[in-house]
Amino acid sequence: MTTDPAHYTQLTGLLRDAATLESVAQLLGWDQETYMPPAGAATRAEQSAALATLVHQRRTDPRVGDLIAACESDPSITGDGDSPRARNVREARRAFDKATKLPSNLVAELARVGSQSQQVWKEAREKNDFAMFAPWLEKMFGLSRRKAECYGVPKGGELYDALIDDYEPGARAADIERVFTPLADRLSTLVQELQDSGRAPSDAPTRVKIDAARQHEFGTFVIKALGFDTNAGRLDVTTHPFCSGIAPGDTRLTTRYREERFTDALYGTMHECGHGLYEQGLPKADHFGEPLGDSISLGIHESQSRMWENFVGRSRAFWEWAMPHAKRILGAALDPFGVDDLYRAVNRSERSFIRVEADESTYNLHVMLRFGIERSLLRGDLTPRDVPGAWNERFERLLGVKVPDDRRGCLQDVHWSFGLIGYFPTYTLGNLHAAQMWEKIRTDLPTLEADMARGEFAPLLAWLRTNVHAHGKRWRADELCTRITGKPLSADPLMRHLEGKLRPIYGL
Amino acid sequence: MTTDPAHYTQLTGLLRDAATLESVAQLLGWDQETYMPPAGAATRAEQSAALATLVHQRRTDPRVGDLIAACESDPSITGDGDSPRARNVREARRAFDKATKLPSNLVAELARVGSQSQQVWKEAREKNDFAMFAPWLEKMFGLSRRKAECYGVPKGGELYDALIDDYEPGARAADIERVFTPLADRLSTLVQELQDSGRAPSDAPTRVKIDAARQHEFGTFVIKALGFDTNAGRLDVTTHPFCSGIAPGDTRLTTRYREERFTDALYGTMHECGHGLYEQGLPKADHFGEPLGDSISLGIHESQSRMWENFVGRSRAFWEWAMPHAKRILGAALDPFGVDDLYRAVNRSERSFIRVEADESTYNLHVMLRFGIERSLLRGDLTPRDVPGAWNERFERLLGVKVPDDRRGCLQDVHWSFGLIGYFPTYTLGNLHAAQMWEKIRTDLPTLEADMARGEFAPLLAWLRTNVHAHGKRWRADELCTRITGKPLSADPLMRHLEGKLRPIYGL
Repeated sequence: MTTDPAHYTQLTGLLRDAATLESVAQLLGWDQETYMPPAGAATRAEQSAALATLVHQRRTDPRVGDLIAACESDPSITGDGDSPRARNVREARRAFDKATKLPSNLVAELARVGSQSQQVWKEAREKNDFAMFAPWLEKMFGLSRRKAECYGVPKGGELYDALIDDYEPGARAADIERVFTPLADRLSTLVQELQDSGRAPSDAPTRVKIDAARQHEFGTFVIKALGFDTNAGRLDVTTHPFCSGIAPGDTRLTTRYREERFTDALYGTMHECGHGLYEQGLPKADHFGEPLGDSISLGIHESQSRMWENFVGRSRAFWEWAMPHAKRILGAALDPFGVDDLYRAVNRSERSFIRVEADESTYNLHVMLRFGIERSLLRGDLTPRDVPGAWNERFERLLGVKVPDDRRGCLQDVHWSFGLIGYFPTYTLGNLHAAQMWEKIRTDLPTLEADMARGEFAPLLAWLRTNVHAHGKRWRADELCTRITGKPLSADPLMRHLEGKLRPIYGL
Repeated sequence: MTTDPAHYTQLTGLLRDAATLESVAQLLGWDQETYMPPAGAATRAEQSAALATLVHQRRTDPRVGDLIAACESDPSITGDGDSPRARNVREARRAFDKATKLPSNLVAELARVGSQSQQVWKEAREKNDFAMFAPWLEKMFGLSRRKAECYGVPKGGELYDALIDDYEPGARAADIERVFTPLADRLSTLVQELQDSGRAPSDAPTRVKIDAARQHEFGTFVIKALGFDTNAGRLDVTTHPFCSGIAPGDTRLTTRYREERFTDALYGTMHECGHGLYEQGLPKADHFGEPLGDSISLGIHESQSRMWENFVGRSRAFWEWAMPHAKRILGAALDPFGVDDLYRAVNRSERSFIRVEADESTYNLHVMLRFGIERSLLRGDLTPRDVPGAWNERFERLLGVKVPDDRRGCLQDVHWSFGLIGYFPTYTLGNLHAAQMWEKIRTDLPTLEADMARGEFAPLLAWLRTNVHAHGKRWRADELCTRITGKPLSADPLMRHLEGKLRPIYGL
């Protein structure tokens, strides 16, 4: 075991202290979405702003900068640039340089207004009242623009790139567009082909009425089977499902139940569980607050959630295992259906309105819509007031159906309400990463499908732990992709996966 | 409207900032008891310690001291020593002087070890394993002794007084003993007399089996009827019931359900609701973080909880109103019983083991036991290891029954596990205050019983809001007592209440 020099130990100590406060801020956010009484909202905004300010102070503490510099000039740490410690310092530098560009009052304002705005969004969404939310959307885009301006436009890039970089280090809007545009065409073609076949599987097995309590029991049963440690995490109910990796030993998932379609909650839960398994697999016990204890990027995070949701959860093998348990826990409503009925129903391609409930063939079209709109908003080509119109028009163009109301349109997602702008593209990047990783996993684990059909998910989880989770932020997303798959990220594996699964279901 | 001078406004601003962070610490505590997954305990201890340190920094900020001094020497504020602003400054001074006596590392240590110790207590209680908890009890008493030493022994007093003062400003152990000793005799005599009558009412109406979900529905129905605002608060389940007045608009109650005796949860819930009504009635919107927005003392807090639990909840009028609702919500198990059956059952005098489930005649004996033990521990006359023996011996002497195990003995209460030492006596002070206040309320509200029998609790709540809640910490407990009742606190009203209610029930 290498002994760490004092400046390295002091640096990781300071990072850990900042992370402890950041974890409290996370808890405030989780509580706001789960259990906080409505009248607590005003003080919650103040609490969030106070914590954000404290975290920002810790992150921009000049001692952190000095210690990073001391580590950088210490060859015992940075001599081998690929070593875990060198990478830890490199990523700490990146985070420090970014944090010091933001003035403290902007950080507090983003937290305060974001907290208020999120409350308004919740009510506006319930009441289907975009006008109520519009001024807050404007505020959040205004604050985000200020944030982007503080970071600065990267060379040859655009303002939006400064925001994406928080979620997907190094990514550029123009590069993303270059991947997204042809992908949109290939997906639209596939969706059209499936529609035209006239052989859509029945969705009757997912349209049975099942009460929330049974759904919760089944969801909990499934995530435990996948490997989620409920001694170090939990599952609650919120308007918008999310996963919060609050602290070591404390990873919280949320979901929502619709009695008339149990698969919405099931796949929402499996999705968040995928995030949760990544959080629980990160080496936080040793590296809490350090880049080495953190996830690589949101794209890689999403690769994990989408893998468990779709590559596992929408596979025939999964339903082979899950069907008897579903019948036992969810009750008689499922009696008329068999494994293939479920497998086919959950892979039905549908031009529907809600992103988090979309099937695999249409999902990325929902993402691309949001990517386009937020980019236009940030450029100033679109004003927040005009979002509903732009949304509905582009939605019809991309998905071929008319949006019936804003609740099922531009009010459906929580993200913009608290300033997550530049975040959406990572969903599609995650799908691409998942597909490319999955091809490698199938080679490495020849019994994968048979294992899943018996409810044995441990080999898959072990593979992900070893190849992805255990490394924290040691590799960038593109490095990880090349290390694992030997190739840069491409849209081909995702298209192979979708065409390979959906065409046979549609008899093509 | 008086304009406040700048130093006064700045002072209240700083106090509010400290309270915002303190409210986050409260949320951490609430979450630890309600929803935190077990593996989150280690980081929770660090989070709590970090917040405690920050709150302490804010509270001992030299600027706070300077602003207090500026206010003290400003006759426009302190000229009339009884004015709200003068009292605000007086209490801010008291809090500042106390806080500055504690070193920051002791504050952090109390929070960190307290958080860990509370987790251990929870497990030890479940496993009925005192040995597991003993070292933590020792640590918490050690830290509390250090805290008391920092505060210093008040003139003519003892070390324990320094701790009581945190909960009941100005109270002294010797004074409390002088009230408690004769009260213990009078209560023991009454309990013996009731026992000897051989006419104990049947407890069958409380011994029906009712599931937790129905109990929760009934409890929620009752607290809403009493006036608890669920838009600004909530009710959850914990090992040990408590009320946390987290922030303006955010007051959280907890309870616990035993299927075999629904009245335990009902009265636990009504008790915490009483605390919650006080918290919701404090003028926090205008005075959050200031003494004027805070409760007077734990004794007064307890007077509110015990009033709603016992003077309301164990009255015949309450059951006249509640009975049909109980039958509707709790189900057929209550069919055989009438109003009088319930009224008599919930007033049955019983030598039982659990304080929070004790009836009114024995409750204060449980408190006196704890007062004696913690005082001995602090004096060093008793070591933590010997607590079970001392507990069981004194329990038998006071209550005449043998304690079967530590879970129903010295492991039952959460308080010592996180350093609440000197807190227990406030429970009995609360009962005394409630009884004395109640006699005045009955005079002021001649239709009180008829109102309650119709489920109209608003007049009572309005009386409490006007006479107690709205004043925050403007008056000390003894001042409030004299202002309201015209007399200093005495044990007579409590004994009159108990004898007046229980003797007729026992046919005496």
